[in-house]
Amino acid sequence: MSIVIGAEEMAHYLDEVFPQVRGMFRIDEISETRVVMRLVADERHLRPGGTVSGPAMFSLADVAAYVATMSRIGKQALAVTTHCSIDFMRKPVSGVDLLAEARILKLGRSLSVTDVLLYSDGTSAPVAHASLTYSIPPAR
Amino acid sequence: MSIVIGAEEMAHYLDEVFPQVRGMFRIDEISETRVVMRLVADERHLRPGGTVSGPAMFSLADVAAYVATMSRIGKQALAVTTHCSIDFMRKPVSGVDLLAEARILKLGRSLSVTDVLLYSDGTSAPVAHASLTYSIPPAR
Amino acid sequence: MSIVIGAEEMAHYLDEVFPQVRGMFRIDEISETRVVMRLVADERHLRPGGTVSGPAMFSLADVAAYVATMSRIGKQALAVTTHCSIDFMRKPVSGVDLLAEARILKLGRSLSVTDVLLYSDGTSAPVAHASLTYSIPPAR
Amino acid sequence: MSIVIGAEEMAHYLDEVFPQVRGMFRIDEISETRVVMRLVADERHLRPGGTVSGPAMFSLADVAAYVATMSRIGKQALAVTTHCSIDFMRKPVSGVDLLAEARILKLGRSLSVTDVLLYSDGTSAPVAHASLTYSIPPAR
Repeated sequence: MSIVIGAEEMAHYLDEVFPQVRGMFRIDEISETRVVMRLVADERHLRPGGTVSGPAMFSLADVAAYVATMSRIGKQALAVTTHCSIDFMRKPVSGVDLLAEARILKLGRSLSVTDVLLYSDGTSAPVAHASLTYSIPPAR
Repeated sequence: MSIVIGAEEMAHYLDEVFPQVRGMFRIDEISETRVVMRLVADERHLRPGGTVSGPAMFSLADVAAYVATMSRIGKQALAVTTHCSIDFMRKPVSGVDLLAEARILKLGRSLSVTDVLLYSDGTSAPVAHASLTYSIPPAR
Repeated sequence: MSIVIGAEEMAHYLDEVFPQVRGMFRIDEISETRVVMRLVADERHLRPGGTVSGPAMFSLADVAAYVATMSRIGKQALAVTTHCSIDFMRKPVSGVDLLAEARILKLGRSLSVTDVLLYSDGTSAPVAHASLTYSIPPAR
Repeated sequence: MSIVIGAEEMAHYLDEVFPQVRGMFRIDEISETRVVMRLVADERHLRPGGTVSGPAMFSLADVAAYVATMSRIGKQALAVTTHCSIDFMRKPVSGVDLLAEARILKLGRSLSVTDVLLYSDGTSAPVAHASLTYSIPPAR
């Protein structure tokens, strides 16, 4: 699947549509096979003790699936998450960025399905695994 | 299943274990059949336009399942979410509190399964539906 | 949501579209609030020892969600399951029919979301809990 | 994770614990990185027209996750599926074997989490994607 929005343009788009999480996420890679995003470890989205919370992990998986989908279909402000299944498997390493590796499994006319693995930066055993469905509104 | 922690004690416990979300949630009801929690609609956890974000909905479902489980087994600081499946079905009403109605489907020795329906306050069609599994560490 | 196909007509329709499971399921109830279906306990779909297998429970939940959806939108042979999340919570009672209680949570133009609880006949603690999404093809 | 039960021994074990599905599945590969299983396309588990049904896909994903788990922990007749999330993404190719590629994401003391992709033999776009949790009973 070819890419229609690259990392730099996507970063600006995210700031525009999700201003409330500005500075929380960074895009490490948008390529034909995957998208890699990063949850920056700073105090605002960490629990006491430096752990990334479940909701912050959900947010990262969700935005990674969003970016993966938009990078292939173009800006669709009305696309919405309709489903997420997420398994929390290990405690994230404290005080370290969390990485999301997203791969699109299906890109249909009306929905996308994306597989996302979350890792603590520098480790290889996944912290969480999610599958997300985005509903893509019909073009007018 | 009888209740071992009531609403007032639980509210203090939540402030203690999750200080970073203090003021975000309120406990409306802890009873034998269900727990009802409220995500207070204020600017901090709303998207521009007053909409509750997906991660905020996930947070509310997660904390409601946590409260439902703790209210029956007592304080278990090490209990963790191991799985969540959530369907986002409707747009929440803008600027309105979001309510979570949680019912425990299984309370075993090592895990609980909780069903959660989310509603915009004052409406009856559910905004989202989640099922959450908490892992309960073995007593020493 | 009003009903457009009742139990008797639906039973014939199931025999027609799913001939390979003829005799496996019965429709106990199609009403405005719920659909109740029954997996008949006979040797063919039981494990040795009389237990209902996981795949048989999945089948029952899937057909109950299908019947709930069709009973409200009419016959749509092209509707397909796009997602199922299922928690298996207890061992079903051996040698006993399994009941599915299905409730539609959302019925949109292009998809339905159905919540299904499975019980062993005569007991009240749920054996499994599922959430299923059906994709409904656009009318021509 | 090293393998404690190879393909041949596992095939005999499956016949013993699941005699009712004898001949339905074949083990193509048990290696350190993955397990590959095959649903043999014959009339018994196909819908009219030669399509693999949803429940048959669920069965294949479930048995592949079971085999992946057992191949690493040894025979545990009491291990049970506690959760499955499955996305059905494409229509399987009619009359063709269905392959499951299973990868263990977590192998803890009390549970395993396995990711499974299903493909029609000879094609590369996945037909379905599942995540399964097995509960492993404590050793006595």
